[in-house]
Amino acid sequence: MSKDVFNPLLYLALVHYPVLNRRGEEIASAVTNLDLHDLARLACTYELPACYVVTPLKDQQDLVRRLTHHWLHNVGKELHPDRERALRRLRLVGSVESLSEEIRGETGRTPLLWATSAKRHPLGISPAQARRMQEERNVPGVLVLGTGWGLAPSVLERCHGFLAPIEGRGCYNHLSVRSAASILVDRFFRDVMNKDV
Amino acid sequence: MSKDVFNPLLYLALVHYPVLNRRGEEIASAVTNLDLHDLARLACTYELPACYVVTPLKDQQDLVRRLTHHWLHNVGKELHPDRERALRRLRLVGSVESLSEEIRGETGRTPLLWATSAKRHPLGISPAQARRMQEERNVPGVLVLGTGWGLAPSVLERCHGFLAPIEGRGCYNHLSVRSAASILVDRFFRDVMNKDV
Repeated sequence: MSKDVFNPLLYLALVHYPVLNRRGEEIASAVTNLDLHDLARLACTYELPACYVVTPLKDQQDLVRRLTHHWLHNVGKELHPDRERALRRLRLVGSVESLSEEIRGETGRTPLLWATSAKRHPLGISPAQARRMQEERNVPGVLVLGTGWGLAPSVLERCHGFLAPIEGRGCYNHLSVRSAASILVDRFFRDVMNKDV
Repeated sequence: MSKDVFNPLLYLALVHYPVLNRRGEEIASAVTNLDLHDLARLACTYELPACYVVTPLKDQQDLVRRLTHHWLHNVGKELHPDRERALRRLRLVGSVESLSEEIRGETGRTPLLWATSAKRHPLGISPAQARRMQEERNVPGVLVLGTGWGLAPSVLERCHGFLAPIEGRGCYNHLSVRSAASILVDRFFRDVMNKDV
């Protein structure tokens, strides 16, 4: 499969601050070990350059470093080389602005930030539409995922577009961030994967 | 959306025994709390009738009951009614044979068991092809997911078909069972969801 098939570039960002709690208050959420593994493996499978873990909290950043160190070195790396390959795609940043800056430095282009939510937005578009917008502008994009009860308004305001929530049958759409990210990435590339899936 | 849109019926089964360990030995794996939550939420979102948790181990069955009891009753139910709705779809069984029997009793039809694996199978088909086979025969189906290092041969032998592994770019396809299940269910229903996704 040619590299072109997987352009445009898509990055993942798992935001732990600022996000909302169940009362709609702005908080910093705790990092979940399985989120890092699942999203890193997803990024590796779909050849996404990186998955950003966004948290400004020093102790949470230290936790991420401890969690990943086991897999990137010594026995973890020896026993699970596949896991090491995936976790190498994790990047730790303190804010959404930082990752946008980093991607601009890496690609020379300002990435489009795609906000994700379980709530409908009047301007919500599909992952395929987001991909086509990136293709038209020839710019990278970032799938911005919220933990807790979702992205805070201050993050949504910085995003360039909103992805429509994943809807199955009826009105239940409370997928885990792990499931939602997996389905959105698969849908983003579906039309250009050229396979009977 | 009409109910027909989501026929045929698809069930999930997360197998903890018999599965393989990293050395290819047959084992019974431990239940992972987040697997139950993610798959129950996935089943609820796509209106799958149930997600079967397959383990013959009494202590693991007790663990599943304890884990789910918190969300199905009292404070868990009050604080997270959405989670309760999802976890109600979990069903505990001791074997793949038992869930096949239960679905036959529930639907009057013997379900087709679709084996999933990260390895290619010469007869592997896509989720869409599996759906079409169910539609042609008008029978329910079960997405059989393995924990650990995958389903044991004795389970594969009982399945009616093999789903091709999810392939992104290149050869890395080590998704978590949570990600793989999410993408496979979405692909299974994609053509009949009648949405621009």
